[in-house]
Amino acid sequence: LPPGSRLPSSRLLARELGVSRNTVLSAFDILASEGYTEAEIGSATRVSSILPETLQIPEYSDRLPTSAPATPCLSRLVQTRKRPSMGYADDIIPFHVSAPDLSHFPFDVWSRLLNRFWRNPPRDLLVNGDSAGYRPLRQAIAGYLRTFRSVECNENQVIITTGAQQALILAAQVLLNPGDRVWLENPGYPGLQHAITATGAIGAPVELDDEGISIEHGITIAPDARAAAVTPSHHYPTGVTMSLPRRLALLDWAASTRSWIIEDDYDSEFRYGSRPLSALQGLDRHGRVIYAGTFSKVMFPALRVGYLVVPSNVVDAFLTLRRAVDDHPPIAVQPALATFIDGGHFASHVRRMRGLYAERRESLIASLDSHFSGLLRPVASEAGMHICALLDPGYATGTEDGSVDKKMAAVARQNGINVTALSEFYLTEPARHGLMLGFAGFPPEILDCAARKLARILATT
Amino acid sequence: LPPGSRLPSSRLLARELGVSRNTVLSAFDILASEGYTEAEIGSATRVSSILPETLQIPEYSDRLPTSAPATPCLSRLVQTRKRPSMGYADDIIPFHVSAPDLSHFPFDVWSRLLNRFWRNPPRDLLVNGDSAGYRPLRQAIAGYLRTFRSVECNENQVIITTGAQQALILAAQVLLNPGDRVWLENPGYPGLQHAITATGAIGAPVELDDEGISIEHGITIAPDARAAAVTPSHHYPTGVTMSLPRRLALLDWAASTRSWIIEDDYDSEFRYGSRPLSALQGLDRHGRVIYAGTFSKVMFPALRVGYLVVPSNVVDAFLTLRRAVDDHPPIAVQPALATFIDGGHFASHVRRMRGLYAERRESLIASLDSHFSGLLRPVASEAGMHICALLDPGYATGTEDGSVDKKMAAVARQNGINVTALSEFYLTEPARHGLMLGFAGFPPEILDCAARKLARILATT
Repeated sequence: LPPGSRLPSSRLLARELGVSRNTVLSAFDILASEGYTEAEIGSATRVSSILPETLQIPEYSDRLPTSAPATPCLSRLVQTRKRPSMGYADDIIPFHVSAPDLSHFPFDVWSRLLNRFWRNPPRDLLVNGDSAGYRPLRQAIAGYLRTFRSVECNENQVIITTGAQQALILAAQVLLNPGDRVWLENPGYPGLQHAITATGAIGAPVELDDEGISIEHGITIAPDARAAAVTPSHHYPTGVTMSLPRRLALLDWAASTRSWIIEDDYDSEFRYGSRPLSALQGLDRHGRVIYAGTFSKVMFPALRVGYLVVPSNVVDAFLTLRRAVDDHPPIAVQPALATFIDGGHFASHVRRMRGLYAERRESLIASLDSHFSGLLRPVASEAGMHICALLDPGYATGTEDGSVDKKMAAVARQNGINVTALSEFYLTEPARHGLMLGFAGFPPEILDCAARKLARILATT
Repeated sequence: LPPGSRLPSSRLLARELGVSRNTVLSAFDILASEGYTEAEIGSATRVSSILPETLQIPEYSDRLPTSAPATPCLSRLVQTRKRPSMGYADDIIPFHVSAPDLSHFPFDVWSRLLNRFWRNPPRDLLVNGDSAGYRPLRQAIAGYLRTFRSVECNENQVIITTGAQQALILAAQVLLNPGDRVWLENPGYPGLQHAITATGAIGAPVELDDEGISIEHGITIAPDARAAAVTPSHHYPTGVTMSLPRRLALLDWAASTRSWIIEDDYDSEFRYGSRPLSALQGLDRHGRVIYAGTFSKVMFPALRVGYLVVPSNVVDAFLTLRRAVDDHPPIAVQPALATFIDGGHFASHVRRMRGLYAERRESLIASLDSHFSGLLRPVASEAGMHICALLDPGYATGTEDGSVDKKMAAVARQNGINVTALSEFYLTEPARHGLMLGFAGFPPEILDCAARKLARILATT
């Protein structure tokens, strides 16, 4: 049938071809959905005047089947790179370290805000994306950080990223050259380590004490370090909070050596009891701190919205690389998230979760106390979504290869308990052994039941 | 007031303090919103038992104001990098090269699909993101590409990215080492050039003829190239389509030299009249082609959803780097987009836009013909959202420094017309001069009016 010609009626065609009318109508639907026909309301269906792409079967379609080489030639970068592990299994069962409780998330508010934007979005926001992110969201984040984290910034210093990992990678790319040495907390967060080493920089594993990263040790092993990457609010994985004197000492080191500090403030929202210290960024008087945060912990990880706060004199450099990497963040949830924060929904969700998680944390500590009789002792910490519990040293030294906690974690997983070994997070031979126990995603009775089961498992291995 | 204690009544407090009750109520609201108080329904407001973070004003707050160094020490990568330009201004006025017409986008369907997912999303999708992207979306894309682009793939080969630029960067990082040579179309797409050179690879600018990139010229200037990066469906910026013999020759070259082909199929949906050729990927029998696509052109750029289709034997390598870069794409629009495609909305939007854009294209060609009397002649092309119109060579050679089209574009912009000079896209001395005229975002009468105005401007400069 030539373009523009009218299709025969389905009734007529069914009779002619000797098939049912439904068969003809199905065929018509397929033709219409693939663009071969077009119909105007109140008018007949016609063959489209502009035909869609049709499959051109090239004469080479009968060539040999795919003969890809067994060892494709890839970059050194990917060849030398293991698939990064965050050190924990993904199953959302106790004690998954970072699963939030989603049963209290206000999905009704969230979907209403999304819907409000998407019903009739301003057209210019859909075409020209801002590399730094949607300005009202940056304003909302800057306001939130000024109020709750003592971060000194305005929205021009905020850069929205596709999750915290992109924020850390971007910081590393802007600040570091291959071969540069960088202080890393040991043990420490694998995502931060990956971001640093992906640029070709070399991590220097620095010891921690109960005030945080040891400046002395850092200066001893890497006096020429170009940067330090730290988690001062709540050290990952042990939960230690960096003390104020240590914060000031780290800032002094950075100012005097003109080094950078990458501050990963990944779960600062969840503090129980004590007042938090100001972020390093808020204490910095020399523009040395790059501050990274995320919405994954308070909202949910698959949101993939993180941010950087950078000194004003390097904003342009960050945006230059940001544009080269993925141009700008998706508009998708940005307007809804801005309203979610501005309307107070974010703060009240944090508040509600903080109360809930505080209870769960207390309950887990009590469970450990009653089921483990001293074998597992929580590291002193007042924050976060997990507890780091150390193994009794007497227990730990009894084994051959020093990875007793990894063995325990493996056995626990076989028995349906998701725990993570502290020794996974060491860049060197582990100095301490323990288990990371996430509590945020699970109610007290489930936590207690899992703790009891874990104690039984560990007692029999 | 100690934690848990009851707040005095607002009436009482107003009387005691000698202020209006509204003032007290405002203060109570602020305390509640910041988490200092909590109220249960039907019960009194009390001081929260768990206090929120409060601002700790460190004793160093009166230090000197920020004394950041004037020249912060940044990476060589960012220092040597200009802010990438896509060669065009952002104003959405004629002839913006890539602004889609959004007045026909079914925002009602789109917001309904978003809402359907977000009202009550499956919790596991919010916690554990798939590095390759949401599987049903990958299935929808694989189905679409098999049907409409003859791409041979299943969903396991599809990797969702945050826009096409991230897809191209990821491909470059997985395939290329610093110092590798890569054939680049000259002129060519800046985003593709940036992706290649950001890895430290070196672009070799290869000539084009009316069948596409010249294999002979490529072999002459870079016989050892590790990859070729091309836009075969619709060369950016000139609009030339790579012929079938040239496609097969390029594939033969890649197979015999074990080089890679990066196929950027950025606007293959918009073809007018002729049947499209199969994608290079669909003709490849040796697993040499990495295929990149985007939803920016059919839907809108700020969606930031792109994808790669990669040979099965390199999927793991791609996912390893993808995880290291930003873990996984945001869940945000992925479920809605999957349903948008599966439900036929995507195909019917493409069809509607193809008809609309075909009209606009015809109309612009007619306008150029009537207003420019041969000064600007469209390059033969049957696809895309813009026309590349060459300047009459006699006109072009009349100027001193050979960038006559850049001057024209600058003058046009001063007069409110957004045109882009062809010479912006050359990696070498430009061989041809012309203007890129986007037509997709503007109705015929606006295009004609702008073309008339442009002709007047150019005649008087």
